[in-house]
Amino acid sequence: MEELEEGRRSRIDFSKLRRVGEAGCEVVPVVLQDADSGAVLYVGYANELALRETLRTGRAVLWSTSRDELWRKGETSGDVLELVDVRVNCEQNSLLYRVRPKGEGVCHTRDPATGRRRPGCYYRRVLGDDLEFF
Amino acid sequence: MEELEEGRRSRIDFSKLRRVGEAGCEVVPVVLQDADSGAVLYVGYANELALRETLRTGRAVLWSTSRDELWRKGETSGDVLELVDVRVNCEQNSLLYRVRPKGEGVCHTRDPATGRRRPGCYYRRVLGDDLEFF
Repeated sequence: MEELEEGRRSRIDFSKLRRVGEAGCEVVPVVLQDADSGAVLYVGYANELALRETLRTGRAVLWSTSRDELWRKGETSGDVLELVDVRVNCEQNSLLYRVRPKGEGVCHTRDPATGRRRPGCYYRRVLGDDLEFF
Repeated sequence: MEELEEGRRSRIDFSKLRRVGEAGCEVVPVVLQDADSGAVLYVGYANELALRETLRTGRAVLWSTSRDELWRKGETSGDVLELVDVRVNCEQNSLLYRVRPKGEGVCHTRDPATGRRRPGCYYRRVLGDDLEFF
């Protein structure tokens, strides 16, 4: 877990979508973006139910492909993502949730420098032939 | 095609990832973001080869899950996406390409008001119980 999230070596899981597909999940990828800063926070997945619940409640709701259930972001942690709007792409096979984070941080990891949860999940750069992270 | 891209009725393809998975594609989702404006341009897919080619060439390279081949964005259209950097998420199952678009527009659709290609693909909002687009 630590190495996956804090390490410098690539262990990118290229089997992720194949497993999602093999499980028969009817989902599209959802980009979660901070509507104010423009930062891309993370990528989740939504089925039609999750999309409808997002629009109905005004908060980001996703479909957990690992637990195979609705994932109301922040329900337990308090890190709710208030919805600004939902957008759909030209080909209607992905979504963009523009949100306002209401909690400490969206990522479940903590920045070792501050001890606080990171605001988003893309805190590492990928570089070079070795796909090392910085 | 026109209705899919310009219409107001939802025909969101929730089977997209299942089909990607069933085809055995070893890819992760890639968010393409304009590094200057912060706009989310679209979501593509990359396998390890596409990621390596992106880092090697300094331009966004994806894997076309429909054609099952490398997709060097802009190779035919000239709408190259110059790479600023590649980022990976905490769990190493998605990527973020931060890019600078060099062409007219990233989306293959045109804005009827201007006749020009749209800068990105998320030009429609999803609203309400009917999932109508505006």
